[in-house]
Amino acid sequence: MYEQKFMLRAIEIAKSCAEADEVPVGAVIVKDGRIVAEGGNMKERQGNAVCHAEIVALSAAAKALGNWWLEGCEVYVTLEPCPMCAGAMINARVESVYFGAYDLKAGACGSKVDLTEQGLFNHTVKVSGGHMQAECAALLTRFFEIKRNKMREGKL
Amino acid sequence: MYEQKFMLRAIEIAKSCAEADEVPVGAVIVKDGRIVAEGGNMKERQGNAVCHAEIVALSAAAKALGNWWLEGCEVYVTLEPCPMCAGAMINARVESVYFGAYDLKAGACGSKVDLTEQGLFNHTVKVSGGHMQAECAALLTRFFEIKRNKMREGKL
Repeated sequence: MYEQKFMLRAIEIAKSCAEADEVPVGAVIVKDGRIVAEGGNMKERQGNAVCHAEIVALSAAAKALGNWWLEGCEVYVTLEPCPMCAGAMINARVESVYFGAYDLKAGACGSKVDLTEQGLFNHTVKVSGGHMQAECAALLTRFFEIKRNKMREGKL
Repeated sequence: MYEQKFMLRAIEIAKSCAEADEVPVGAVIVKDGRIVAEGGNMKERQGNAVCHAEIVALSAAAKALGNWWLEGCEVYVTLEPCPMCAGAMINARVESVYFGAYDLKAGACGSKVDLTEQGLFNHTVKVSGGHMQAECAALLTRFFEIKRNKMREGKL
């Protein structure tokens, strides 16, 4: 069941990404009502396109739980997962995902494609989107606004 | 342009996975006609559902090239990529993927879903499948056959 405190923690992580000049997306993995792992977008810092917040968090959860099978785990993430991340959640057999902002261009939980459609793959992840949507979307809007302004001023 | 020697190398890697009791899938990343990175399925060994052959190889390629953007890179892989791996190739802006066996249940390059459809996302990966299909498929068939026999004999 959705609990706002976990989305607030994901937002905190996303903010720390922005401070590190990284597209602000944060993720938290919850099992039995407690956080077992967290992750922020590390793409630029790691120099690796695979290092989205969800992949970082899922990998940390597998390590923390000692199992690739993330049975009963819930993912809280500030942005709708892309195909890579939605696919990773299916592979790890995550129970459900709660996301913040919708991603109309690349979202794979219903917006652009729906990889979480009931029965499409051997495991179905339950999806619930739009949680704290305004706050989550604003983080991204502000980040790209600052980037554009810096570019205009020739600082990038 | 497809070159058989790279698929043969991917098959070798897949074989080494089977020997390590890992579902046999191998991947090779090629740029300007030479191998820049390789990866085998490490899911069981790493205890992480993210560690498919392609993810391992893409991460190694990003490290080797010092860039998340795998411009001009080709992926050779023995099995049709799943949604996670096809999504990762889109994110890394890989140029093309050559795969061996089709995966009718989970393939995301046309078999079950098609994430590589022209113009669907902000980057389109060119796809060519069925290379050394019989050899690549036989690796998997044999692996699961041996598993089933061991199970029947009570050895698993």
